Amino acid sequence: MDKKVSGSVINRLPRYYRHLTDLCSSGTERISSKELSERMGVTASQIRQDLNCFGGFGQQGYGYNVEMLRTEIANILGLNRGYTAVLVGAGHMGRTFATNTKFESRGFKLIGIFDSSPEVIGTEVSDFTVMDYADIKEFIDENHPKMAILTVPKEAMKAVAEDLISMGIKAFMNFSYTELAETEGIIVENVHLSDSLMRLSYKISECENKEKLDKE
Amino acid sequence: MDKKVSGSVINRLPRYYRHLTDLCSSGTERISSKELSERMGVTASQIRQDLNCFGGFGQQGYGYNVEMLRTEIANILGLNRGYTAVLVGAGHMGRTFATNTKFESRGFKLIGIFDSSPEVIGTEVSDFTVMDYADIKEFIDENHPKMAILTVPKEAMKAVAEDLISMGIKAFMNFSYTELAETEGIIVENVHLSDSLMRLSYKISECENKEKLDKE
Repeated sequence: MDKKVSGSVINRLPRYYRHLTDLCSSGTERISSKELSERMGVTASQIRQDLNCFGGFGQQGYGYNVEMLRTEIANILGLNRGYTAVLVGAGHMGRTFATNTKFESRGFKLIGIFDSSPEVIGTEVSDFTVMDYADIKEFIDENHPKMAILTVPKEAMKAVAEDLISMGIKAFMNFSYTELAETEGIIVENVHLSDSLMRLSYKISECENKEKLDKE
Repeated sequence: MDKKVSGSVINRLPRYYRHLTDLCSSGTERISSKELSERMGVTASQIRQDLNCFGGFGQQGYGYNVEMLRTEIANILGLNRGYTAVLVGAGHMGRTFATNTKFESRGFKLIGIFDSSPEVIGTEVSDFTVMDYADIKEFIDENHPKMAILTVPKEAMKAVAEDLISMGIKAFMNFSYTELAETEGIIVENVHLSDSLMRLSYKISECENKEKLDKE
């Protein structure tokens, strides 16, 4: 696969991957772009266009080989690489994310959890004992994690990120309700759960406005 | 404001709202599109284009009035409407989301938390006592919540959603690792934390591939 895949296709790949994984689990061997489009609520032409980037898995009259396409997308996303990750901030969100996430099938291996609060250090989360944030430099020097998950309070985020960048961390998943900017050489995914809430609020109020107009 | 605002602008509004809220908190009264663009990492022309949809808050040589623009965006998003919401599934994610989320400034008012597990019913989460899911119909008939947050296990999601739709709920925020389809009259925001993880994996592997090529 030599073709350059566009950013917006890349953004949609995780969703294809999830649907293809579900299809694999339910034993589906092949699927037409029409069926996949109905399942995903996008147009069949969008699907053909997106998946054409990945070579010859779609065939006229046959559709897509689910397992092969899933493997190809996993390879492109680097899900088989097992990048090491540390999690900083073992509060509610940190514990939930560490416990609920299938890191290994998402490209990562969680190797350590840190917090600075004396009441939290030493407690158990998933298979980990929370370590003292004061010791993270030593841990990073020894283990060279590729990525850090930031589940620290909003006020602490920038200082922690700068700390970790100075220790060599170049990729971040940031949950901390304020954005970390993607500067030169630093990779960031900011997660904002409340954005979904606001979009939902917009959609509901739009519906209500429409209902009101319809009544008038 | 009579102009129809496009879907992609709407998708970006929560981010504008967050940045304007931070600016208000730090006492900033006005900001130029250039400053805002640097802060947000998008082009100034994108910002002017997006915010032009909302009337005369930007003035040549003055910039934007932060407080007025924030209020206008809040109104468009319906953040002042206080739509009532119930949360179903008081596991890790449910507890975390109920505890950490500032519902009232995001357009919602949480009015009840439900679970079906005997060990969880009756426990405290934030200011709520978890109620028995078996009693949710009665609660909905009495309180008419506008929205349900689904933090139930993947396997239970579809049945719970169908249940709640039959009881009159028309809007959902779904955290349950499998998608709820947006059917006629039903509003859905699916949240997939692992999609961010996969995108991050892609970005790291793309960087590594580039580094490898640069070395060759």
